[in-house]
Amino acid sequence: MDLLLKFKQFIANAVPQLHPSNDELLVAVSGGIDSIVLTDLLIKSKFDVAIAHCNFQLRGAESDRDEAFVHQLADRYGVPLFVQRFNTKQFAEENKLSIQEAARKLRYDWFGEILENKTAKSGNPAYLATAHHADDNVETMLMHFFRGTGIQGLTGMPFYHKERRMVRPLLFASREEILVYANDHRLAWVEDSSNASDKYTRNLFRNKIIPSLKEVFPQLEENLQGNLQRFSEIAELYTEVVAQHKKKLIETRGSEVHIPLLKLQKTSPLKTIIFEIIKEYNFSSAQVDELIKLFDADNGSFIESASRRIIKNRGWLIIAPKKNDIADHIIIEEKETHVHFSNGELHIKKLDGANIQVSADKDVALLDASAIRFPLLLRKWKQGDYFYPLGMKKKKKLSRFFIDQKLSLVDKESAWVLEMDKKIVWVVGHRIDDRFKLTPGTKNVIAIKKL
Amino acid sequence: MDLLLKFKQFIANAVPQLHPSNDELLVAVSGGIDSIVLTDLLIKSKFDVAIAHCNFQLRGAESDRDEAFVHQLADRYGVPLFVQRFNTKQFAEENKLSIQEAARKLRYDWFGEILENKTAKSGNPAYLATAHHADDNVETMLMHFFRGTGIQGLTGMPFYHKERRMVRPLLFASREEILVYANDHRLAWVEDSSNASDKYTRNLFRNKIIPSLKEVFPQLEENLQGNLQRFSEIAELYTEVVAQHKKKLIETRGSEVHIPLLKLQKTSPLKTIIFEIIKEYNFSSAQVDELIKLFDADNGSFIESASRRIIKNRGWLIIAPKKNDIADHIIIEEKETHVHFSNGELHIKKLDGANIQVSADKDVALLDASAIRFPLLLRKWKQGDYFYPLGMKKKKKLSRFFIDQKLSLVDKESAWVLEMDKKIVWVVGHRIDDRFKLTPGTKNVIAIKKL
Repeated sequence: MDLLLKFKQFIANAVPQLHPSNDELLVAVSGGIDSIVLTDLLIKSKFDVAIAHCNFQLRGAESDRDEAFVHQLADRYGVPLFVQRFNTKQFAEENKLSIQEAARKLRYDWFGEILENKTAKSGNPAYLATAHHADDNVETMLMHFFRGTGIQGLTGMPFYHKERRMVRPLLFASREEILVYANDHRLAWVEDSSNASDKYTRNLFRNKIIPSLKEVFPQLEENLQGNLQRFSEIAELYTEVVAQHKKKLIETRGSEVHIPLLKLQKTSPLKTIIFEIIKEYNFSSAQVDELIKLFDADNGSFIESASRRIIKNRGWLIIAPKKNDIADHIIIEEKETHVHFSNGELHIKKLDGANIQVSADKDVALLDASAIRFPLLLRKWKQGDYFYPLGMKKKKKLSRFFIDQKLSLVDKESAWVLEMDKKIVWVVGHRIDDRFKLTPGTKNVIAIKKL
Repeated sequence: MDLLLKFKQFIANAVPQLHPSNDELLVAVSGGIDSIVLTDLLIKSKFDVAIAHCNFQLRGAESDRDEAFVHQLADRYGVPLFVQRFNTKQFAEENKLSIQEAARKLRYDWFGEILENKTAKSGNPAYLATAHHADDNVETMLMHFFRGTGIQGLTGMPFYHKERRMVRPLLFASREEILVYANDHRLAWVEDSSNASDKYTRNLFRNKIIPSLKEVFPQLEENLQGNLQRFSEIAELYTEVVAQHKKKLIETRGSEVHIPLLKLQKTSPLKTIIFEIIKEYNFSSAQVDELIKLFDADNGSFIESASRRIIKNRGWLIIAPKKNDIADHIIIEEKETHVHFSNGELHIKKLDGANIQVSADKDVALLDASAIRFPLLLRKWKQGDYFYPLGMKKKKKLSRFFIDQKLSLVDKESAWVLEMDKKIVWVVGHRIDDRFKLTPGTKNVIAIKKL
């Protein structure tokens, strides 16, 4: 069957909500054969298309050649083009990432920014389209498998990711089909000469492992595609039952999570359930055995991750934020939108005051922007701190405020304040200061949400 | 570390209930290096050992050479030996099995028979020990994976199987460690020259695939062993959540299973749950899609397996036994112990009347052996049939008996009787005939259990 026809059928079946007359697609185009073929198929399917190209500046003149090639491509199709150059090496060093991880983060962050401001003529938000194909999918799964994985590593990439507004419309097609299409339609593309370890591994699979295996498993590709589908469903069931176990075991108390030890010890399968509980607090699978040793350890014994301690306390394991480890004085500049601190994260946005809706959520602070001058200071509260609680004209000591609010010792100890020029703006997660509240005259709002 | 020490530690950790002074092991010995090393390690660990050797008579003189070799081995160690010769080819043809499947079935059935009558001096039942090692385990898992599998295919072999009274004490050891031990201790073994496809595949893994993969995944073996452990735990969780879904969806009515269609359609992940429901009725994974088509099919539409139909009936899917497909007159000879019929299976045993306990289970018939002469006839009941229900001195028509028992139409239609010389011995699953009951003078009992 013609690849274009298969392509349209795959979209109709796998992502029926996607339609040429309603939806615009931002296609990630490196200039390689896969993204070239995807672009051609999307345009022939009458989709509204824009092209996004990342120049990671990792291959000198070759990177610039690719950028120029994609420029010509967009001109020839007459579609909008977005190009971004990244200093990938520097970003990787600064953030302690591998070059691959850095490129992935830069790429998807930038795509996200473009999508934020992109809407199809129909009013639908635009989608990102990437050119991953069936062999990519299987090879990635095999890499996970041979590196060691749980169930998630065997599920493959989804062809549709709602939250990330992302589609992979070539996921049904084999590398071979894509090559045939490119040649039949005389499409030009560029080759990436880099020899990344990922690429080396893929070539090993393609040229050596898979041909050898096919001698004894002639249906290998179909079998592995079948595995991807089955393991996706198994992962769904796995997520369901893990959530049940976690719900039974976890008690949230303020910033802490308490786990009754006897109940945990009776849980089966123990290691997997422990890992599923602790992984979201930055503990590794290697620490599962350490945690099991805590069962019989002295009170006060603990294990640590980057952000948390798990402490044995009589009949309980307590997952608590690490004190003093994360900076307890954080300067917030005007351009910052995300701030991490030991109690979580702050997300900061500027909003138009005309449309603002007042929120009863204590984790949201809505402040009059005209009263705020950056930088702000985020810090632990201390004895002697006072503020003007929203709705009151008299100042009040925080120690008194916390007593009136009936805060637990743990919550009191871990309370933070946001400060400007020595004035408390917000007792984070509890109450804003009356001096910074919204008024009928407020034009612009600074909205801060604690996560 | 010395293999013998690792071996003892593995048993102590993995099967702590197994102890040299309490337990006797029946070791399956082919004469190959793995079973030779296992036998030596068990004897050096002071276990009471007996050897079982199967001669499958598939390799002519070589099979007899192996049998003679194992004879010498048992003599040298001074341990009991069990040898059985099988006409494997004929058994495979008669039962439509592959040679491999036939050998497996013959082997484990025979081992089971020996274990039935084997008890350690301590009174503990004996265990079967097989010589599977770590590389066998990984290779088997890889075969499942490349052939296409669900989660069970990735869990590996258990080192302890309670119901089957089976242990695999070498499962921790690599092929290499076993070879080193055999050479260090100058053990002799025989080589199997057969070139089964299974063996060919294992050699491919060993000599080609795994060395290639280790170039890019140096920790490959450890990673795959880690997968085996993780997927065993994932499989446990999977079984738990599948059972929850099945409980919600399945209503048993007599010999039928009813599934409400609307509820099923809302289930996610649909295909996996459907497969888990229908697989125990001999449906294949390929029939899942056929079943989904039944959702919108006409009333009365159905799909079939060897033993069942699944019928669409208004808002329900009904899994029902197939009528008339399995022979409805089955002759049972004296030597037979297992009889399959459309309602299930009969297991037949001879017991000593002295120790017999009367059972209230309607699926168990306890008959006085002196009243029974084989062959028996197992057949569907028919109009006009009568018998002397246990406890009554007068005969009664089955049609009347069924009415008094308030049997549903389905159960009545699917009732079977066991007959001898035109006399009904047992209305299967309901009542035995008074003429064949146990009496104070009964010496031997024929016990029949319907499964």
